[in-house]
Amino acid sequence: MARKDLLDISSLDREEIDLLLDQAVPFKELFTRSVKKVPTLKGKSVLMLFYEPSTRTHSSFEVAAKRLSADVTNFDVPHSSVVKGESVRETIETLQAMRTDFIVVRHGRSGLPGMIAGMTKASVINAGDGAHAHPTQALLDAFTLKEVFPDLTGKKVLIIGDILHSRVARSTSTILKRLGVQVAYLGPGSLVPKCGPENTVRFTDYAEAMKWKPDVVYLLRVQMERQDVQYFPSLREYHKVYGVTEERLKQIDGEGLYLMHPGPVNRGVELCDGAMDYSRSLINRQVENGIAVRMAVLYWLKPAEE
Amino acid sequence: MARKDLLDISSLDREEIDLLLDQAVPFKELFTRSVKKVPTLKGKSVLMLFYEPSTRTHSSFEVAAKRLSADVTNFDVPHSSVVKGESVRETIETLQAMRTDFIVVRHGRSGLPGMIAGMTKASVINAGDGAHAHPTQALLDAFTLKEVFPDLTGKKVLIIGDILHSRVARSTSTILKRLGVQVAYLGPGSLVPKCGPENTVRFTDYAEAMKWKPDVVYLLRVQMERQDVQYFPSLREYHKVYGVTEERLKQIDGEGLYLMHPGPVNRGVELCDGAMDYSRSLINRQVENGIAVRMAVLYWLKPAEE
Amino acid sequence: MARKDLLDISSLDREEIDLLLDQAVPFKELFTRSVKKVPTLKGKSVLMLFYEPSTRTHSSFEVAAKRLSADVTNFDVPHSSVVKGESVRETIETLQAMRTDFIVVRHGRSGLPGMIAGMTKASVINAGDGAHAHPTQALLDAFTLKEVFPDLTGKKVLIIGDILHSRVARSTSTILKRLGVQVAYLGPGSLVPKCGPENTVRFTDYAEAMKWKPDVVYLLRVQMERQDVQYFPSLREYHKVYGVTEERLKQIDGEGLYLMHPGPVNRGVELCDGAMDYSRSLINRQVENGIAVRMAVLYWLKPAEE
Repeated sequence: MARKDLLDISSLDREEIDLLLDQAVPFKELFTRSVKKVPTLKGKSVLMLFYEPSTRTHSSFEVAAKRLSADVTNFDVPHSSVVKGESVRETIETLQAMRTDFIVVRHGRSGLPGMIAGMTKASVINAGDGAHAHPTQALLDAFTLKEVFPDLTGKKVLIIGDILHSRVARSTSTILKRLGVQVAYLGPGSLVPKCGPENTVRFTDYAEAMKWKPDVVYLLRVQMERQDVQYFPSLREYHKVYGVTEERLKQIDGEGLYLMHPGPVNRGVELCDGAMDYSRSLINRQVENGIAVRMAVLYWLKPAEE
Repeated sequence: MARKDLLDISSLDREEIDLLLDQAVPFKELFTRSVKKVPTLKGKSVLMLFYEPSTRTHSSFEVAAKRLSADVTNFDVPHSSVVKGESVRETIETLQAMRTDFIVVRHGRSGLPGMIAGMTKASVINAGDGAHAHPTQALLDAFTLKEVFPDLTGKKVLIIGDILHSRVARSTSTILKRLGVQVAYLGPGSLVPKCGPENTVRFTDYAEAMKWKPDVVYLLRVQMERQDVQYFPSLREYHKVYGVTEERLKQIDGEGLYLMHPGPVNRGVELCDGAMDYSRSLINRQVENGIAVRMAVLYWLKPAEE
Repeated sequence: MARKDLLDISSLDREEIDLLLDQAVPFKELFTRSVKKVPTLKGKSVLMLFYEPSTRTHSSFEVAAKRLSADVTNFDVPHSSVVKGESVRETIETLQAMRTDFIVVRHGRSGLPGMIAGMTKASVINAGDGAHAHPTQALLDAFTLKEVFPDLTGKKVLIIGDILHSRVARSTSTILKRLGVQVAYLGPGSLVPKCGPENTVRFTDYAEAMKWKPDVVYLLRVQMERQDVQYFPSLREYHKVYGVTEERLKQIDGEGLYLMHPGPVNRGVELCDGAMDYSRSLINRQVENGIAVRMAVLYWLKPAEE
C-alpha cells in the first residue's frame, strides 16, 4: 500500500489520499497534547535539497522530520553550479551513495523530483517543482478544509490569482476535486488556463465569482520575484481588482466564508490588513496542519529495498 | 515563579536573578564532568530567529539547547523581506502555528522580542535587540564575576566604550547594580549617556577612570560595521585613548585587575595583543559560562498553556 | 593507541592506517544492514568549521557524526572576518570554551588545522587545508581500493591532473604508498612536482602513462575557481589532453581498469559523459565509503583530558 515517493497528487488514488489525511489526525493530536516527539523514524535520515529558497516549507519539513526523531541534514546546493541537469544527477548519486532514506526536494524545474526519484532508492518528496506540483501543500489544504467541513462533497472553493503558473493551484484543485469539492478559478484572463481540469468554473471578474457562492476563498500568493509575468499595471491595481479589500472582507464575513492562503501573504496585495485578523481565516491553521500532514507523509512512504 | 519570556534584565527581580545564576552552577558542573547531555527538554523545539548574524551567540544557544536534548531548527530569515513589521508578525504567527516551544530572537530593532512575546505562546528569549537589551549576556557576565568574587557587594566594574549604543552595557550594568556592584562608564563624551541609571560614575579620561580603582575593566566591542557612529578619527586613535594598550596592560596586571569583553575582540582596537594571554582575562570563561547560563534560562522559562 | 587529532596521513603509522581501515568495515556493514544509528558518541558535540565551502565533505562528516548520535553544530564563519590568523585563534578559543569534543575544519591555508589542534583540547579533524592534506579523503580512497583489491601490494594507480596544488593527490598517494601501491602522476609539466615523494613515476603524456599499465585511473578535480593556475588554453583542450575522453574510456574498459575521482566531477573536463555510467567507476562507492571511514575516524580519536 505504501509508495516510495510523493511526487504529485494526480498519481494518488482516492484511497491513498484518505489514508494520508486520516494518518495526519493522530500526529496533530499528539503535539497538541504536547507529545512533541515520537521515535517512529529514529535512525532514519532526511536530506533537504532546496534549489529554491523557502523558509516555511523548509522549516515545516524539518520540524516534521525531527518530531519523528529522524536526522535532518541540509544539503546546501551552490546555486551557481546547478544550472545543468548533469550536476543534479551527480548530486543525487552522491545522496544515494550516502544512503539517505528521504530526500525532500524543491526545484524551479517541473518534473525534476520525478527524475530524481528514478535515480535513487531513497523516498523522494516533492516540496514544489516549477509550475507542476506541490503535493504536501495540497494535502494540508485538504486536511484543513476537512477540519471545517467533515464532508467536503459539494463544497465550493474559489481560487484567486495567477492560476497558470501556480503549482499550488494545480495540486490543491486536483485534491479538492478528488474529494468532491467544486473548484472555480478567478484571475486575469491571461493567467487562468482555458484548458484546465474538467468541471472547473472560470471567472475574470470578482463580483461575478462571488455570485457563484463559494464557501471558501483561496488566495494564491503573487510571486513578486517573477520577472516573466506581468501581473498588472501595479500591485495596488491588482489588489483593487483581485485582492480581498477591506470592503470585500465585510462581504466575505457577512456571508460566513472562509479564507485560505498558502503563505507568506503579501499584505496589501492579496489581502488587506484587516484580513490578517479575520475570524474565519484558516491561514495559520494551514501552517500548523502542514507539520502533521508532512509527518503522515514521512510515516507513509517506504524507501526501496530497505 | 517561572516566567514565559526573557526579554531584559530590568524586569527580573533580585530573587529571579539569583535563581537563574544558581541554576547555572549545576549545568556548568555537569559538562565539566563531561556529562554533556541531559534529557531535560527532550521533545521540545527551539527555533532560532536571527535577523542579525551572530556566530557566537547563535552557536552558544544552539549548543545549550542541544545539551538539554531539545531540537533546534534555524528559521532563516530572508534579509530583504523583513523590512516591515508586518512580515515579522507573519513569521511569528507561522512559528506559533508550528507550536514551537522556544523562540530565540535577535533583531536590530529595540523592543521587537517583546512584541513577538505578546504574539505567541512560545517562550521568547531576547538574544539582543538593537540598543535595548541582551539579557543572557548580562547573566553570563554576572555569573562569571561571581565565580571570581562570590560576594559582589561593593565591587567596582569599569565599562569602556560606546556605552550609548550598547545593549551589553545596558543589560550588564543593570544586573551588576542589582547585585550590589558599583559601575562606572568610560568613553568619548558623545557616547556616554548623561542621563543613565542612577549611581553610575562617568569618565571620559582613562587615567581619571583608573584612579576610581576598579576591580574589573570591561571593554565593549567597537561595532565597526556601524556607519552611523563616528568612533574616532581612526581605530588606532581609539586604541590609544580608550583601548587597553600594552602599557596599560602592565598597570592592570600590577594592580591585579580582571579583564572582560563580550567578544569577538577587535585586536589592536579594544585590546592589545598581549591582553589575549593576560592571566586575569575572563573572556574565554565568559564564553564557557554562556552555555551554562543559557541552559539555565531554557530550563527556567515555561511556555504558555503547556 | 588513539590519537587526539587527525591532521594528515604522513603522521600515521602503518598500524594506525590498518586499524582505521579495519574499523570502517563494521560501520559500513551496519548501515548497509539499515542500522543507521549507533549510540557511540551520544552526548558528544561536533563543530563544523568550514572556511571554504564544501557541500559533499561537509554533509559526509555531518551524516557520519549523526549516525554516531553526536550533536552537530555549524559554526558559520563570516568570510570577511577571517583574513587574519588572530581571528582564527579567537574562534578556536571560543570553541574550546564551549567544550566541544570534535572540530572538523576546512581552510584554504596549509597547516591551519594543525595550528588549531595545538590550541584546543578538542579533537581536530582536517577536512582539507590548502594544498597540504585531506586525510579522510585518502582513507576513503584506500578503503575503496581495498574493497576491490584486498591485497594492494604492487597495484598501480595513475593520478591525473594538477598534482602540484592538490591535497588529494598528496594525501592519497601517501596512504597508497604506505599500503604498497605504486603511484604515478600524469599532468602538465608545470603542475607535476619534480621533487615529490620517492618512487613516484611521472608522466606528461597520456599514451605514455597508459603504457605503464595502471590498474586504476584516478582523476583529480580541476579547480575551476582558482584564478592563479593556468590549466590550459581551454577546458576543452584540457579534456583532450588529460581527460578521459569517450575514446580513452573504451581503452580503459578494454583493459579492465577502475576509475576514481574525489568528486564533484566536471563533466566534459576530467571525464566524458560516458564515464558517468562506466561499470568499473568507483566514484559513488567513494562517497558511500566516505561516511563509514569518517565514522571510524570519529570513533577512534580521543579528545584530551576527558
